[in-house]
Amino acid sequence: MGTSVALKISGRNKLRGKVVNVTPGIVTAEVEVDIGNGNRITGVITKNSLDEMQIKTGDEVIALIKATSVMFIKE
Amino acid sequence: MGTSVALKISGRNKLRGKVVNVTPGIVTAEVEVDIGNGNRITGVITKNSLDEMQIKTGDEVIALIKATSVMFIKE
Amino acid sequence: MGTSVALKISGRNKLRGKVVNVTPGIVTAEVEVDIGNGNRITGVITKNSLDEMQIKTGDEVIALIKATSVMFIKE
Amino acid sequence: MGTSVALKISGRNKLRGKVVNVTPGIVTAEVEVDIGNGNRITGVITKNSLDEMQIKTGDEVIALIKATSVMFIKE
Amino acid sequence: MGTSVALKISGRNKLRGKVVNVTPGIVTAEVEVDIGNGNRITGVITKNSLDEMQIKTGDEVIALIKATSVMFIKE
Amino acid sequence: MGTSVALKISGRNKLRGKVVNVTPGIVTAEVEVDIGNGNRITGVITKNSLDEMQIKTGDEVIALIKATSVMFIKE
Repeated sequence: MGTSVALKISGRNKLRGKVVNVTPGIVTAEVEVDIGNGNRITGVITKNSLDEMQIKTGDEVIALIKATSVMFIKE
Repeated sequence: MGTSVALKISGRNKLRGKVVNVTPGIVTAEVEVDIGNGNRITGVITKNSLDEMQIKTGDEVIALIKATSVMFIKE
Repeated sequence: MGTSVALKISGRNKLRGKVVNVTPGIVTAEVEVDIGNGNRITGVITKNSLDEMQIKTGDEVIALIKATSVMFIKE
Repeated sequence: MGTSVALKISGRNKLRGKVVNVTPGIVTAEVEVDIGNGNRITGVITKNSLDEMQIKTGDEVIALIKATSVMFIKE
Repeated sequence: MGTSVALKISGRNKLRGKVVNVTPGIVTAEVEVDIGNGNRITGVITKNSLDEMQIKTGDEVIALIKATSVMFIKE
Repeated sequence: MGTSVALKISGRNKLRGKVVNVTPGIVTAEVEVDIGNGNRITGVITKNSLDEMQIKTGDEVIALIKATSVMFIKE
């Protein structure tokens, strides 16, 4: 990723992209990020995190995913 | 993603790529997948899943990630 | 499980059952599945997944749970 | 579930069964539990938890799974 | 922790504290717990768990976190 | 928490402490952190993250935990 922040976190998967959609709920919020190459990452975070970080469409963000949360499909 | 299998699973994030590294342990195994655009996904699955699915370097796989497992970094 | 789809996913726990309750929220939705033997599985997925997969009461589904998400209680 | 311990935990899914297999690693350990009706639950916990709880084949345990960790497959 | 319940669960992290805030949504609810020493733990559980356990401000609770859900930041 | 890095991540729980134990395995590693007030946080991360971040006993780190990974026990 090459970012100073991302390099300091043990979560192994850091995918940089641009926010394309935000859906706020009461407790949670959905954030959709275009990471290029036709891929999108959707995350559900707390509404409080959304508000404090002021995440909005167009923002550059990094999706962070712990390796133990990843499964694989082999067709 | 456009795959029949992937479309039938509620986990929202499905990232297609090629296995570039496999590290088997005793209970778990690490699988690293190149999803293009300079991005890699690392997942930790059970050694038993690795063996049963016969995942090896060069395989085409889809990384599956539930939306509630995704965080965001905004620098 | 014996299903072609389920066999292709590294998530080790696949429990087949029938949807007995669906509670849609704004961002998330709760789905309750009867897996027989007096056991029920409750899952929280995104509202978007619920809508796209058209999950409703009476549907046959498979609950998918990664092994690293399972804890144990011993009384 | 009807157990005093299980009722006091917010994790919604509690599946009672018998341990049928234990695979200890260095950091983690795999525990496989038969929950009846032809279903098994596999969990990966820390080796330290395995040792402290003295989990072994034949033990009665309850598998505990948070609802946000559950996905669904609809074929 | 020294509690009989907590000792019987494989989830390694058990942090005792007092509920300082509860935000109910439709499907989920946010619970904030003061664990002392200036630290707070925020958790998102199902609204159904919140209701059944009757969690409210002022309650003594234990936050339970599986070790595989923990990441580390080193600045 | 008051750290510039921690404030930029949506994961809501950031607990600062000192590493008191590290157990490396093949694929994963266990890290135990004293966060004060008699509380410890144990996390399982990949061995690769441990090595790249050079986490060792005595290091100051922040444990990062997503709110959806937190459960509650009420006795």
